Amino acid sequence: MRYDLIIANGTVATAADVFKADIGIRDGRIVQIGGEMDDATRVIDATGRYVLPGGIDSHVHIAQPSGPGIVMADDFDSATRAAAFGGNTTVMPFCLQERGQSLAATFRDYREKAKGAHVDFGFHMIVTDPTPQVLGQELPALIAEGQRSVKVFMTYEAMRLDDAGILATMEVARRHGAKVMVHCENEDVIAFLAARAAEAGDIAPRAHATTRPVAAEREATHRALTLAEVVDVPIVIVHVSNGAAIDEIARARARGVNITAETCPQYLVLQADDLERDNWEGAKFVCSPPPRDMVEQQNCWRGIQTGLFDLFSSDHCPFRYEDDQGKRNPAGLRSFRHIPNGIPGIETRLPILFSEGVMKGRIDLTRFVALTSTNHARTYDMYPRKGTIAIGADADITIWDPQIRRTIRHAELHDAADYSPYEGFEVTGWPETVILRGILIVEGGTMTARAIGTEVPRGGS
Amino acid sequence: MRYDLIIANGTVATAADVFKADIGIRDGRIVQIGGEMDDATRVIDATGRYVLPGGIDSHVHIAQPSGPGIVMADDFDSATRAAAFGGNTTVMPFCLQERGQSLAATFRDYREKAKGAHVDFGFHMIVTDPTPQVLGQELPALIAEGQRSVKVFMTYEAMRLDDAGILATMEVARRHGAKVMVHCENEDVIAFLAARAAEAGDIAPRAHATTRPVAAEREATHRALTLAEVVDVPIVIVHVSNGAAIDEIARARARGVNITAETCPQYLVLQADDLERDNWEGAKFVCSPPPRDMVEQQNCWRGIQTGLFDLFSSDHCPFRYEDDQGKRNPAGLRSFRHIPNGIPGIETRLPILFSEGVMKGRIDLTRFVALTSTNHARTYDMYPRKGTIAIGADADITIWDPQIRRTIRHAELHDAADYSPYEGFEVTGWPETVILRGILIVEGGTMTARAIGTEVPRGGS
Amino acid sequence: MRYDLIIANGTVATAADVFKADIGIRDGRIVQIGGEMDDATRVIDATGRYVLPGGIDSHVHIAQPSGPGIVMADDFDSATRAAAFGGNTTVMPFCLQERGQSLAATFRDYREKAKGAHVDFGFHMIVTDPTPQVLGQELPALIAEGQRSVKVFMTYEAMRLDDAGILATMEVARRHGAKVMVHCENEDVIAFLAARAAEAGDIAPRAHATTRPVAAEREATHRALTLAEVVDVPIVIVHVSNGAAIDEIARARARGVNITAETCPQYLVLQADDLERDNWEGAKFVCSPPPRDMVEQQNCWRGIQTGLFDLFSSDHCPFRYEDDQGKRNPAGLRSFRHIPNGIPGIETRLPILFSEGVMKGRIDLTRFVALTSTNHARTYDMYPRKGTIAIGADADITIWDPQIRRTIRHAELHDAADYSPYEGFEVTGWPETVILRGILIVEGGTMTARAIGTEVPRGGS
Amino acid sequence: MRYDLIIANGTVATAADVFKADIGIRDGRIVQIGGEMDDATRVIDATGRYVLPGGIDSHVHIAQPSGPGIVMADDFDSATRAAAFGGNTTVMPFCLQERGQSLAATFRDYREKAKGAHVDFGFHMIVTDPTPQVLGQELPALIAEGQRSVKVFMTYEAMRLDDAGILATMEVARRHGAKVMVHCENEDVIAFLAARAAEAGDIAPRAHATTRPVAAEREATHRALTLAEVVDVPIVIVHVSNGAAIDEIARARARGVNITAETCPQYLVLQADDLERDNWEGAKFVCSPPPRDMVEQQNCWRGIQTGLFDLFSSDHCPFRYEDDQGKRNPAGLRSFRHIPNGIPGIETRLPILFSEGVMKGRIDLTRFVALTSTNHARTYDMYPRKGTIAIGADADITIWDPQIRRTIRHAELHDAADYSPYEGFEVTGWPETVILRGILIVEGGTMTARAIGTEVPRGGS
Repeated sequence: MRYDLIIANGTVATAADVFKADIGIRDGRIVQIGGEMDDATRVIDATGRYVLPGGIDSHVHIAQPSGPGIVMADDFDSATRAAAFGGNTTVMPFCLQERGQSLAATFRDYREKAKGAHVDFGFHMIVTDPTPQVLGQELPALIAEGQRSVKVFMTYEAMRLDDAGILATMEVARRHGAKVMVHCENEDVIAFLAARAAEAGDIAPRAHATTRPVAAEREATHRALTLAEVVDVPIVIVHVSNGAAIDEIARARARGVNITAETCPQYLVLQADDLERDNWEGAKFVCSPPPRDMVEQQNCWRGIQTGLFDLFSSDHCPFRYEDDQGKRNPAGLRSFRHIPNGIPGIETRLPILFSEGVMKGRIDLTRFVALTSTNHARTYDMYPRKGTIAIGADADITIWDPQIRRTIRHAELHDAADYSPYEGFEVTGWPETVILRGILIVEGGTMTARAIGTEVPRGGS
Repeated sequence: MRYDLIIANGTVATAADVFKADIGIRDGRIVQIGGEMDDATRVIDATGRYVLPGGIDSHVHIAQPSGPGIVMADDFDSATRAAAFGGNTTVMPFCLQERGQSLAATFRDYREKAKGAHVDFGFHMIVTDPTPQVLGQELPALIAEGQRSVKVFMTYEAMRLDDAGILATMEVARRHGAKVMVHCENEDVIAFLAARAAEAGDIAPRAHATTRPVAAEREATHRALTLAEVVDVPIVIVHVSNGAAIDEIARARARGVNITAETCPQYLVLQADDLERDNWEGAKFVCSPPPRDMVEQQNCWRGIQTGLFDLFSSDHCPFRYEDDQGKRNPAGLRSFRHIPNGIPGIETRLPILFSEGVMKGRIDLTRFVALTSTNHARTYDMYPRKGTIAIGADADITIWDPQIRRTIRHAELHDAADYSPYEGFEVTGWPETVILRGILIVEGGTMTARAIGTEVPRGGS
Repeated sequence: MRYDLIIANGTVATAADVFKADIGIRDGRIVQIGGEMDDATRVIDATGRYVLPGGIDSHVHIAQPSGPGIVMADDFDSATRAAAFGGNTTVMPFCLQERGQSLAATFRDYREKAKGAHVDFGFHMIVTDPTPQVLGQELPALIAEGQRSVKVFMTYEAMRLDDAGILATMEVARRHGAKVMVHCENEDVIAFLAARAAEAGDIAPRAHATTRPVAAEREATHRALTLAEVVDVPIVIVHVSNGAAIDEIARARARGVNITAETCPQYLVLQADDLERDNWEGAKFVCSPPPRDMVEQQNCWRGIQTGLFDLFSSDHCPFRYEDDQGKRNPAGLRSFRHIPNGIPGIETRLPILFSEGVMKGRIDLTRFVALTSTNHARTYDMYPRKGTIAIGADADITIWDPQIRRTIRHAELHDAADYSPYEGFEVTGWPETVILRGILIVEGGTMTARAIGTEVPRGGS
Repeated sequence: MRYDLIIANGTVATAADVFKADIGIRDGRIVQIGGEMDDATRVIDATGRYVLPGGIDSHVHIAQPSGPGIVMADDFDSATRAAAFGGNTTVMPFCLQERGQSLAATFRDYREKAKGAHVDFGFHMIVTDPTPQVLGQELPALIAEGQRSVKVFMTYEAMRLDDAGILATMEVARRHGAKVMVHCENEDVIAFLAARAAEAGDIAPRAHATTRPVAAEREATHRALTLAEVVDVPIVIVHVSNGAAIDEIARARARGVNITAETCPQYLVLQADDLERDNWEGAKFVCSPPPRDMVEQQNCWRGIQTGLFDLFSSDHCPFRYEDDQGKRNPAGLRSFRHIPNGIPGIETRLPILFSEGVMKGRIDLTRFVALTSTNHARTYDMYPRKGTIAIGADADITIWDPQIRRTIRHAELHDAADYSPYEGFEVTGWPETVILRGILIVEGGTMTARAIGTEVPRGGS
């Protein structure tokens, strides 16, 4: 057989297996796994390397409107470039319907923005305005063509749905065959505590964490799970940050609710105390839910280890700390309430879990692959095209060098934010070569292909 | 010493003790407990009888507006007459603020309506419209004068508060020293299921129960408890109907939330299957939360026995099944959604618990007294004036004959509804004589005093 | 009426009520509660004082054999003297059957030893050798005459029963109407960890705590509760020290197991860290289960507050730290394994809970009375003779001065140990006057009666 | 490349992936996965078939002594023949040390007995007599050579260890790198209830289930998990039958205990009611723990679906219902206590889960593979040689025809028992062709190879 590309001599891992084999690629797909393949246009020698399915980051925010005066740092070019350098071959950003807008029209805009992406992609539909038009026509049509993941917010005044809105959206998802992702924090609790904090003159970044307590997340998690139970729809609980929310998920699973659970790097290696850093630097760690403490980190690690979590995503949501003139957002300096919620992390997600998880012996390679790639593809209907190394799958492959030791420096990253919350964090292992549908896109520390990312078909009817 | 009244030779019970003693009463108060009292205007021989603190029913609806075209069956005259015959000496109805109304003005109206009550009373303030005027001025003033219990609804479109409203109300309660009672059912879930049921042509009374599932109550219970946890205010979870809600209460208590928990007769002896009775008779069992099944009855009994529940109330909420011409509510016959929510029970509460609880050996007399009287007085700031047999307390006493066997027949009850959901239920034990502040108000099956009920002072500042 | 004694003007509390009243006593019993009693041999003015039922300490070890070379510090004279000074009018020591002995004969010995007690008493039967003779004849006969509480150990090699022994003992208790008290710690786990510690040279007192971890107590608690569930017998879980054991109790109650739960002062105010005190002073805090940490203290407080715990006892188990020559036990200095397990606490139990609980606002007086007196009497069949202030009850009364501030000094206590683990602990409130069956036994800091303690009849058949 | 065997055109599944591919096999191993392989000694066309890793049944009893007068029905010849026909390529029987015996010597005997097996195999070491010789020398040596799974019993008088014995065995396992499998039922509880039943004349097979209640399994499960927690050793909880035991596992995992959990077909499709079948036929369903009820079946299914269970095994433990003369075991007819505990199931395990699980949509193919093959290999150190279809793995492959509908009839099975508890059970899907290390051993309903089974090396030091 003739191959376009052979990856030879590596240690291949899937979500189930680890084995030494060569991989034969033709027409962008994996066509042979084994050995004795020699007739190839190109052969990459992966001796001493791990050959893994390309990372899928199913929770990223790109080029998303973020409220008056705030511009998200990344467009698709910068975000997907960073994604690729971080070992990812697919990302799943959100298509955010703003209130008063058409979801369908918004989606067309996002598709347009996504042109020029460096990795493949698919969208989740955020519904913030569940009008009859949206729920009765637009969303069913979008689901029918494959946009089978819908997200709703229980927090953020401008985006949240009330329970009726969530139920109505879930019902549409159920009827037409989509999953519903939920950001679980009780907005009213947060607003109440934020007002209390403001009254008390408590305005520094740390108050972002204290006004979004575990109780607010636990409550919303229980509620979202109950709504999904009532409607009988599969639910994704995104960015779980603590043990109490984990307990709610475990209890609901035991009741029979169909749940996919996600956590993120910030809940494994950051802490609320980081928000107290001097000189308002704590603002660099403002995300929602906030990082918690050591006990909750351990609870999240346990969820990673026991299989409670299905997905490990970045929740990349990049804002600039300073503007081009080195000036910080003056509103953000007045109060934590004006600091945009979100941190960059698209490029560092995989190295952090590889280093803290695999290299430190907390998880094995198969679990790493499941958490960072396969389960994303399965959850969001991209499997078996994406998320694995198997015959017929897209040849989306990341070759890891487990020997590299590296200190995370934002200066060496590729997103368009101006800092990393993981600055100075030391990792062992880094993605060396990234292959998208058989094309090398990252090699030797440089981008080696033009932007070939395309939207992934997701089993529309 | 000279007494106005002596109750001699009975077996006295308090929430802690059971003992044989005479009770000496003067000026409406208990002044002596013991023996050898002979100088009295009147002596009642209570040989073979239980002498208990008069029942306090802290959850009754009287003369409350109930939506267009629906009139609550009882005014204060009929409701408190029935209460007295059922062994009660104090009731606590609600003062329902309707949206757009002043809470203070409404309260004045209720006080007016309450004139002519046959037993003592106190009010809970229902807030349905938490305007700045209500929360900033009226409610603080009402609490300051002793109205130290505020109720909010999470269900009923016309009355419910959203979480922000509940938090704001709780915060006022916390600052000014009131408790917050919460009706915990998720209205959006119920509306969603009711719409589904309507769509499916499922309109009979049974659908009332299926559209208000345990999950809707569990969710709202967890949420209410979280809100109270966040605000740090004492909360009363009223009319708990099932084990899942009980679990939420137990979990929150273990977290340190200050909770008073209540259940009602309907959750011990009725079932959702009762709503299926032929000929639309199921409508007679429509209340919220609905009765559940045998397993949940047992869970509620366990909560009675283990001390999880503090209060046993009737949630008396009387509507007529037929009008004066024997015609039923035509809307209610069209769909369960138009059947008014509520059942009568003010006169049968104590006999049911006495018979099923004490006489069947599930609880002892002290627990009966605690659940039906003392804990109500303590929870709602009427103690030590009300709720016990102790020196200085109001001489509110009910003398029980534990031998009487009786079948509940609405024809023999005294409320103004036209049926009892407990029709035909057999009980052992009945309140024989009822004494309010030293005055016999019920004796020998008749009312023996004019309406002497007055409002109970509740420790206002 | 003529009284032997009147306690006038005090604030009386029972497990349910707090009220101002005079108490009239005649022939050792309470015969009148109220006022206007003047014809008395003696009147005590209790103005500004609390008049409470005398404390009942249902978990004390007195004059018990404790293994080769070890002598328990207290005999009945010293222990009950200390009990009286600490506000107690009844104690319940154990009758410990040693293996190979007759339980009945042992009990006769204990009764003999108890002569000369300063307070009333009753015994629990410890079964360590459940022979056919003991289970088939002696224990049934003892229960029949009123010894209706049997204790078994799951730890201590010389005393423990295996599960078969516990089940057999429980079955006898069930058939003949006794309760079973269980010391829940898994001996095999402890022995395993102690051997590991020994191997590692870890011999200091702190190792006592580390080799008796929460897991060992949680496991044994779950197991004991399961055995009681299988047999269907009422069980008393004694000296609960932590939240995990509390959870087991709560879970079992929800399954319907009939449980009485007890905790002790050492789990509220001591910590495992106390075992680390310099110069082997940690030995003064060696008891089993060991004190834990701040989190578990809080869990125990919560159990006190929520009603999870029924009993608050001392587990008084006094050993001398030094002998008469000021020499310490040489074996105990060689390893924690030879330090006798137990601490004195009979005199300090009530002041500690009064001060930390009532005076600091964690519990009210009625809960104090329930936890320290009434519930003991009810649990162990001494009620209504003991445990309350009610007509007909024994006039066992302690008058508390809530103003006294005092620092606990063993030099001022009355037991025969040579230290107090609470040395230096400051309390507010102290028992001033102690009355046993109408006789003042402690007044003005001195013993005012000869030893009049007698065994309390406990409803034998 | 030249292949010995190609399996062409099938749908291949691993524990992570499902894809269409040809499999190329050489020298007993999988060497190529993909397509365009043509040069082979033999090609099997698997069009329309599933090509799965051969089943691994890690919980089977073969040729095991079973007490006086009782002979296990199967030797290695019949058991492994049945295993092969049921789609298995590896089995893991137990090496049972009888008390007083050497474990090492016993193991040599079992190895001898295993000669002539039709599938590959490995052993678990059952320790019933943890002497210093066994724990200090034999077991460490056995573990060192790869016998890295040790089993202990908490039930069966002749085999059970007490907690000290379990802890000592676990400690050896921890030090030398083995896992400990535990049969969790509290023997003392069972003996107590069995004696009670005997006393009540309750001797029919149904009493086997009532005397081994869920509480006995829950208790032992909690205890075993605590022992593993204390020692810090990986534990396998075998044959879990109910939701309460599942809860214990979930709680312990959340505490950080390293647990592998197993269930079996009998807990998914049999019930305690089956033990009531007429004419003592209930004896055919006697196994331990016993099958439970519908609610527990559902709980076990949920554990299968949510990932709580790692392993699905048969617990094949075959006894004959009648002897060669058609006479039943006379002791077994006298009382349930003499019916040998165990049922055959080695051949029916995979078809039952395939049919009830995969074909009914409860689980997908990857979860089927994980539960029946991959996880067994990983748990018991046979991976990556066994348990998957990956390059370098043994070519142990079962080709399934998902279309076949078949009624289970013992007459058509291959074990040496004389009945199947699943008689009459209808399944869809059956293993058609079974390949062991590249050799077809079952094809067209007949055995096509001589007995080539060998012991699987398990990573000894």
